[in-house]
Amino acid sequence: MSSEGGYTGKVGEFLREHDLSVGDRVRIVREDGIEIEGVIMPRSELGDDEHVVIKMDNGYNVGVHIDRIEDVERLGRGKEPSFRPLDIEVGRDPELPDVAILSTGGTIACRVDYETGAVKPAFTAEELVSAIPELPEVVNIVEARPVMDLLSENMTPSHWLEIAENVVEAFEEGADGVVVCHGTDTMAYTAAALSFLLKDLPGPVVLVGAQRSSDRPSSDAASNLIAACAFAGEVEAGEVAVCMHGWTSDEVCLVHRGVKVRKMHTSRRDAFRSIDTIPLARVDIRDLRNPMLDVLRDDLRPAGDGPEMEGGFEERVALLKFAPGMAPEVLDSLVDAGYRGIVLEGTGLGHVSESWIPSIERAVDEGVAVVMTSQCLYGRVNMNVYRTGRLLKVAGVIPGDDMLPEVAYVKLMYVLDRTDDLEEVERMMRTNVAGEIEGKRVVGGFEPADGPHHGLF
Amino acid sequence: MSSEGGYTGKVGEFLREHDLSVGDRVRIVREDGIEIEGVIMPRSELGDDEHVVIKMDNGYNVGVHIDRIEDVERLGRGKEPSFRPLDIEVGRDPELPDVAILSTGGTIACRVDYETGAVKPAFTAEELVSAIPELPEVVNIVEARPVMDLLSENMTPSHWLEIAENVVEAFEEGADGVVVCHGTDTMAYTAAALSFLLKDLPGPVVLVGAQRSSDRPSSDAASNLIAACAFAGEVEAGEVAVCMHGWTSDEVCLVHRGVKVRKMHTSRRDAFRSIDTIPLARVDIRDLRNPMLDVLRDDLRPAGDGPEMEGGFEERVALLKFAPGMAPEVLDSLVDAGYRGIVLEGTGLGHVSESWIPSIERAVDEGVAVVMTSQCLYGRVNMNVYRTGRLLKVAGVIPGDDMLPEVAYVKLMYVLDRTDDLEEVERMMRTNVAGEIEGKRVVGGFEPADGPHHGLF
Repeated sequence: MSSEGGYTGKVGEFLREHDLSVGDRVRIVREDGIEIEGVIMPRSELGDDEHVVIKMDNGYNVGVHIDRIEDVERLGRGKEPSFRPLDIEVGRDPELPDVAILSTGGTIACRVDYETGAVKPAFTAEELVSAIPELPEVVNIVEARPVMDLLSENMTPSHWLEIAENVVEAFEEGADGVVVCHGTDTMAYTAAALSFLLKDLPGPVVLVGAQRSSDRPSSDAASNLIAACAFAGEVEAGEVAVCMHGWTSDEVCLVHRGVKVRKMHTSRRDAFRSIDTIPLARVDIRDLRNPMLDVLRDDLRPAGDGPEMEGGFEERVALLKFAPGMAPEVLDSLVDAGYRGIVLEGTGLGHVSESWIPSIERAVDEGVAVVMTSQCLYGRVNMNVYRTGRLLKVAGVIPGDDMLPEVAYVKLMYVLDRTDDLEEVERMMRTNVAGEIEGKRVVGGFEPADGPHHGLF
Repeated sequence: MSSEGGYTGKVGEFLREHDLSVGDRVRIVREDGIEIEGVIMPRSELGDDEHVVIKMDNGYNVGVHIDRIEDVERLGRGKEPSFRPLDIEVGRDPELPDVAILSTGGTIACRVDYETGAVKPAFTAEELVSAIPELPEVVNIVEARPVMDLLSENMTPSHWLEIAENVVEAFEEGADGVVVCHGTDTMAYTAAALSFLLKDLPGPVVLVGAQRSSDRPSSDAASNLIAACAFAGEVEAGEVAVCMHGWTSDEVCLVHRGVKVRKMHTSRRDAFRSIDTIPLARVDIRDLRNPMLDVLRDDLRPAGDGPEMEGGFEERVALLKFAPGMAPEVLDSLVDAGYRGIVLEGTGLGHVSESWIPSIERAVDEGVAVVMTSQCLYGRVNMNVYRTGRLLKVAGVIPGDDMLPEVAYVKLMYVLDRTDDLEEVERMMRTNVAGEIEGKRVVGGFEPADGPHHGLF
C-alpha cells in the first residue's frame, strides 16, 4: 500500500521528510500553539496538496495546512493492514445465515477500516464486526476477503471476471449469500456483468456501496452493509442485486435487481433507483440490530445448485450515445478500429438521424452487431412506430427492448464472447437472462419526478 | 410534398398505379366484399409496406392489405396543403394574448392537420382552430407557420438556427409569445439551443410536442398545445420552455425550463421531466377552454426588448458517454478527426477511467475543450472529492457543474462558435446563461422513483 495515502506535492514531501505514514498517530503543534492529536488520514474530501488530514479522538477530521505546522511528533505506527483472505468465525451463531463479504474498493471499503487510515480495503472480519457492532446480530460473517482495491471508474471486464471467480469460491466454501463492497460509480455495470455471468446461483449476490464515507455522521456505509447482509443471508434466490439507501432518511434501504438499476444522482444517498420496475425488496433499517426485510416481488430468480461461470466478455464493444448534429463518422471510426459490437443510445423509441443509416448498414455488413437502446432510460424501444425506426430495423439494428443502455452494453459484451453469428446475437440479446427484459409491464417504477411531493398535482 | 406519404414497396406502387395520393378520398372494395370509404392516410403506426391506411368517417383508421383490395375508386382529391406563412385573424379577441405557432414536424404537427392526410406540417390557423375549438378562447393565434417538417431525430444545429430566425420574426411581427411544435425525440436539445441563442426575449418561447398522435383517443396533442399557448401568451418572461403532460391523466401539463428538461420515457405522455429542479409552471387542463396557469418559481428570466440572435453553433463537438471497459481510443479518434469540443458523460461525480487521462491530456494540449458531466443526470459534477476527479481537473477537464450532458453538449457548440481560447471556454461554460447552472439548490426535482406511490416507505 501507498503510505502516502494519495498525498502528493508538499504534503507528500512533508510525510516522507518526517518518516510519517497514513495511519500513524501524531501530535501536531500548529504555529498558533494549538495542539492536534490523532491519526493521519488518507488524502480525501478534506485533503489537497497543502493540508494533511488528521482524525482526532473525538471522531472529527481536521485539515492542517502544512505551512502552519510548527512541530510534529509521531506517537505510534499505524496498524499494518492485512490483505490475506480470512476465514474466521466471530462468535458464529448457528441460527444466523452465513455471509461472505468481498471488498473491491470504493468509498465503502476504504473507510470501514478506519483505524488504520488505509486507503486500501484492508478490513478483516474482526475489524468489520468491531466497526459495525450490529452486524453479528444479523448474520455470521464467515469470510471477509479483499479482492481488489479500485475506484470503480477503473473497473474493466477482467475485474468483473475476478469478482465473479471470488463469488463462486465464496459459495463453494459454504456461504448462504455473498456481499460485494463496490464503488458506486460503476456498481450497476458490475451488477449487470455478474447477473449475466453467474448461473445457478445458490443464493444472492448483493453489491453494496456508500455515498458518504464512514467518517461522516451521515455515512450510509454501515446501514447499507447491514441491509445487504440481511438480504444476502435471508433470501433464497439466485439474484444479483444492488442494495443502497432508499430515501434520504436512514429508515429504509432498497434492494434493486442488478440489471434494472442505475445510479441516478451524483451525491445523494438514495442515488440508486430501479428503472421502470420495482425493487426486489425493501429493508427497514431503523433498528440496525433487527433489519426488517420485505420482499416486494414474486418473480425472484430461483436459487440454483451452482454457481457456474464460463467464458467472459468481448471487450471490443462500445456504448455510443446519439445527439442531434453528431456525425456518423464516430460510428465509422469504431468499425474501422475493429469493434465487434456497438450499443446505440438513441432518442425516444430508438432513433438516430437518418444520416447515420448508411454507416449503420456498413457496420452490419461487416459483421458488427448494432443494438438500439433509448437515452430516455424509462420505457422500451419500439422500432415499428416511426419511419426512422423501421429504416433502422431494415438496416439490421437489433432492438434492445426495455434494456437499459448500460445493461445492453454489458450484455452485448457477454453475448459476443459466445457467438459471432449476428442472428444468434440478436436471438440472445432479445432473450431474457436475468430480468433485463420484462415480458409484462410491472406497475410502477416511473414516478412523477416533480409530483405529489411538491403539491403540483 | 411526397404524395406517397412514406409508402414504399407494394403500397407505393399501388398508389402510383392508381394515381392516388395521400389525402385522397377513396372507396375500397375488399376481396371479402367489405367496402371501406375514407381518406388515404400517410404510412404511420399502422402502416407497413403491405397495408394502406384509411381514415374512415367515424374517425377510426384501418389498414387494408394491398393484396386483398379488389377495387378502388377515387372519390375526390385531397386538399393541397399550403406551406405559405399565414397571418390571419380568426375572430381576434383584443382581450386575449397574441400567440404565433411555428411547426417543425413530429407527431404533434403531422396529425393536427388531419383532414388532408398530409405528413408534412401544413396546418393553417383556421385548420388549427377548427381542430382545437377551445384554442380561440385561450389565445389569438395570429400566425401559424410551418417552418420545416422533420422527425426530430433528424434535427441539426442548422435547423436550430432556422427555428430561431422564425421565432425572432414572429416576435417582430408582434406576437406576445411563440409556440414551437416539435418532435419529442430531440425537443430538449432544441430547447437548450434556443435558450442559449435567443437573447432579450420579449416573451416566452414554448416548445410543445405530442406523445400520441391526434388520431388516438388518448392524444395529448390538443391539451399540450393549449397549455403551451396559455403559458406563451399569459406569462411575461424571456424563457424558452417545454410544455408537455405532467402526469398520466389529462389533468395537468407542466412547463419545464428549456435547459433543465429531459425526455425520460420512450412512450408515456408525461415523458418530460424537469431534472433536479422544479418546473416553471403547471397548467391545469381539466377545462380546455379555461386552462389555469400556476407559475411555480420566482426566478423566471425577465422579458427583454429583443429578441436578438447572432452567431451559431460549432458542429465539431461530440457527446461521449463513458462506460467501464471502453478504451480511450474513441476519444483519440475524435481528436484526430478535428473535433474541437468533447462533452464527457462520466460516472458519479464526474469520473472516467484513469486510463483515459493521457488521451484527455493530449486532447487539451491540442486545444480541444473537454467538459465533464455525469451520466447520473441528477446532482452535480464535483471533481474535488476523489482522486480521479482531481487528476482529470489537472489534465484540463472543465467541470460541467449541474448541467445535463445534453445541455452541456449544446452549450459547448454555442461557446466554441464564439471563442477558441480554452480559458474563455471554461469561463463561458461555467457561467450561467439560461438557468442551466443553478447557484443555489432548488428543493425538489429528485423524487423517490419507487417511493410513496408503492407504499415502500
